[in-house]
Amino acid sequence: MKPLITLLTDFGIQDPYVAEMKAVILSICPDADFVDITHQIAKFNIRMGAFTLATAAPYFPPRTIHLAVVDPGVGSSRQPIVIETKRSLYVGPDNGLLVPAASAEEILHVYELTNRSLMGNPISSTFHGRDVFSPLAANLALGLRPKEAGREIMDYVELSFVNAKYDNRGFVCEVLHIDGFGNIVTNINQKELSRLEGHAIIVMRIDGERFPAKVVRTFSKLKGRELGVLIGSHGFLEIVSREASAADKLGVKIGDALRVAGA
Amino acid sequence: MKPLITLLTDFGIQDPYVAEMKAVILSICPDADFVDITHQIAKFNIRMGAFTLATAAPYFPPRTIHLAVVDPGVGSSRQPIVIETKRSLYVGPDNGLLVPAASAEEILHVYELTNRSLMGNPISSTFHGRDVFSPLAANLALGLRPKEAGREIMDYVELSFVNAKYDNRGFVCEVLHIDGFGNIVTNINQKELSRLEGHAIIVMRIDGERFPAKVVRTFSKLKGRELGVLIGSHGFLEIVSREASAADKLGVKIGDALRVAGA
Amino acid sequence: MKPLITLLTDFGIQDPYVAEMKAVILSICPDADFVDITHQIAKFNIRMGAFTLATAAPYFPPRTIHLAVVDPGVGSSRQPIVIETKRSLYVGPDNGLLVPAASAEEILHVYELTNRSLMGNPISSTFHGRDVFSPLAANLALGLRPKEAGREIMDYVELSFVNAKYDNRGFVCEVLHIDGFGNIVTNINQKELSRLEGHAIIVMRIDGERFPAKVVRTFSKLKGRELGVLIGSHGFLEIVSREASAADKLGVKIGDALRVAGA
Repeated sequence: MKPLITLLTDFGIQDPYVAEMKAVILSICPDADFVDITHQIAKFNIRMGAFTLATAAPYFPPRTIHLAVVDPGVGSSRQPIVIETKRSLYVGPDNGLLVPAASAEEILHVYELTNRSLMGNPISSTFHGRDVFSPLAANLALGLRPKEAGREIMDYVELSFVNAKYDNRGFVCEVLHIDGFGNIVTNINQKELSRLEGHAIIVMRIDGERFPAKVVRTFSKLKGRELGVLIGSHGFLEIVSREASAADKLGVKIGDALRVAGA
Repeated sequence: MKPLITLLTDFGIQDPYVAEMKAVILSICPDADFVDITHQIAKFNIRMGAFTLATAAPYFPPRTIHLAVVDPGVGSSRQPIVIETKRSLYVGPDNGLLVPAASAEEILHVYELTNRSLMGNPISSTFHGRDVFSPLAANLALGLRPKEAGREIMDYVELSFVNAKYDNRGFVCEVLHIDGFGNIVTNINQKELSRLEGHAIIVMRIDGERFPAKVVRTFSKLKGRELGVLIGSHGFLEIVSREASAADKLGVKIGDALRVAGA
Repeated sequence: MKPLITLLTDFGIQDPYVAEMKAVILSICPDADFVDITHQIAKFNIRMGAFTLATAAPYFPPRTIHLAVVDPGVGSSRQPIVIETKRSLYVGPDNGLLVPAASAEEILHVYELTNRSLMGNPISSTFHGRDVFSPLAANLALGLRPKEAGREIMDYVELSFVNAKYDNRGFVCEVLHIDGFGNIVTNINQKELSRLEGHAIIVMRIDGERFPAKVVRTFSKLKGRELGVLIGSHGFLEIVSREASAADKLGVKIGDALRVAGA
């Protein structure tokens, strides 16, 4: 079986940056196979990258190598790391990007890359995706053991998505993600939704504007531009509309707070 | 030879949805190779998806598996189907999306997916692309015979692109597609164009506005922003301009009617 | 090792054009592996395509086949060519697109495609990417020697990126590229930058507007929206900002002239 490497970046698809990463990997490990998770993470948005990686990673086969680069600190003292979990390997900057995905699989070890023989030569000071992370991922694909990359560390940067809390007036939740259909992914998880089921719902913006919605199981239960809440494909409560962008309708963006409560 | 699976969706490239489909497929069939046809079909635009799939499919090798998901009805009673043609297999929703491509290769059998052992577990109610269609495509790639997917059906949803009709004043045609260059693809086919050759042409919008154009064989015969009509690479008459978007110039969109006639 | 083919076009990602090229290649050479460099070259912008190809190509393994199509002259008398360098093969139109990348590897031979048995059948007059260049690339991937493609030529179209000249008041340079982060890539190369190091810098637009900037080694040395100049990952001087688009800030576009001088 060929080694599988996924790529997730904020590099976009116009520039040759992602291709250069693949080129470097194929030069070291010609057998590598790639799946692009996305390169459209909003520039420098580590939380959006972390969320996207965490939602996609569970579907990949065991022993997949996930290479992710959203790296506003390139050239600073933040270190390149490799995280070894029970299931996969994660390569990227030590800024929290890899942590939610890796934590969900149980983290075994985190290594800081110190072995300079694994880095490109020369190393540009602005493109570690190509010159540092890609050679490391390629060497892991060739069979390098993670502990050969460098010294084990305990104090890597943490990042997590806290579950929304229920109080007696409903949930105050966070907009974790807005997808290309305009569906609003919140941090209310599947188990908590049972508190709302069978109720009519009010979604309330922090400025107090109220939007009535319906709890449904599928999009097909909604009419036209009606608002609904349902459990999305990643197990979180989503605020959706069948033929419109719920995000446009509510005028919210990633990171905004919302209240979701029985009507 | 590795099994080849194409993907066509309206999921866009920012979200991890396409990557999750590939992840599910590789978990079942690690040898699968992918070609993305496009993920930029306008949201829920089944006709645009069907047109794009039908234009691309003929160029793929025999035994390619085409997996296409443009699925406004996800979660409703529309069924997942697999179409077996003389040349290829098509997997997707029973909403017409697969039919023009499959019909062009001669449809042998259409099966409705009823074999639940072929579906993901659990199945989300909103993302059948990942949880239903992908496992089916992966199993076909592994060698599953289409008839093992479920029961044969005769009454699948039809969709077709009718050829424009010629009357004594010219063609009334439909805008089937507008490509990224702004070229307007119509439903006037190659054979019919002979009726116009050698003539100066008028393209007329339904509101009566008239645009003179020239019948040419290649873009290089047009000057700057001049309008031309030619047979495009898919065998349909296209209204084009060399250095401008013909679609912007005419102010038309997919689905609009146009009259094309001798001047 | 499977033959590796890169693709670079201005076809965008909505239309099935790139997929059709891959389909044609896989029909001839089922083992081919692809890396997309980009399909987002600005329509017909040969210089932008040439720059992008030249920056990416050096990272690929030897014997890679680079297939590039930015081809405003499709259907005209411009010829399809294959360039054989010491390291790679380049396939595309004879309009300069391939030349900067190939020149950097030392050009051995340039052949004009005259062997019609290597072309698709039929050949559309508007899509040589699919009908002419792809079959040629696929045959090269199968082992065809470049000289079997056609006759050797000496008078192919040239294209080059001239290095900025230093006069006693600084550099007058060209904007070669603006990347997705808004970084402005100039034609001032690494060696020349030493003339400026340690100095405060003024970047001046041709209308005389002046923008103070700082010479740095990495983005992390810049504060917020501050302007900096550094050597980018391709060895050229770039004008950058950490949290903003330098291109927006300066209001420049590809091809513009700028003066970069000590303050």
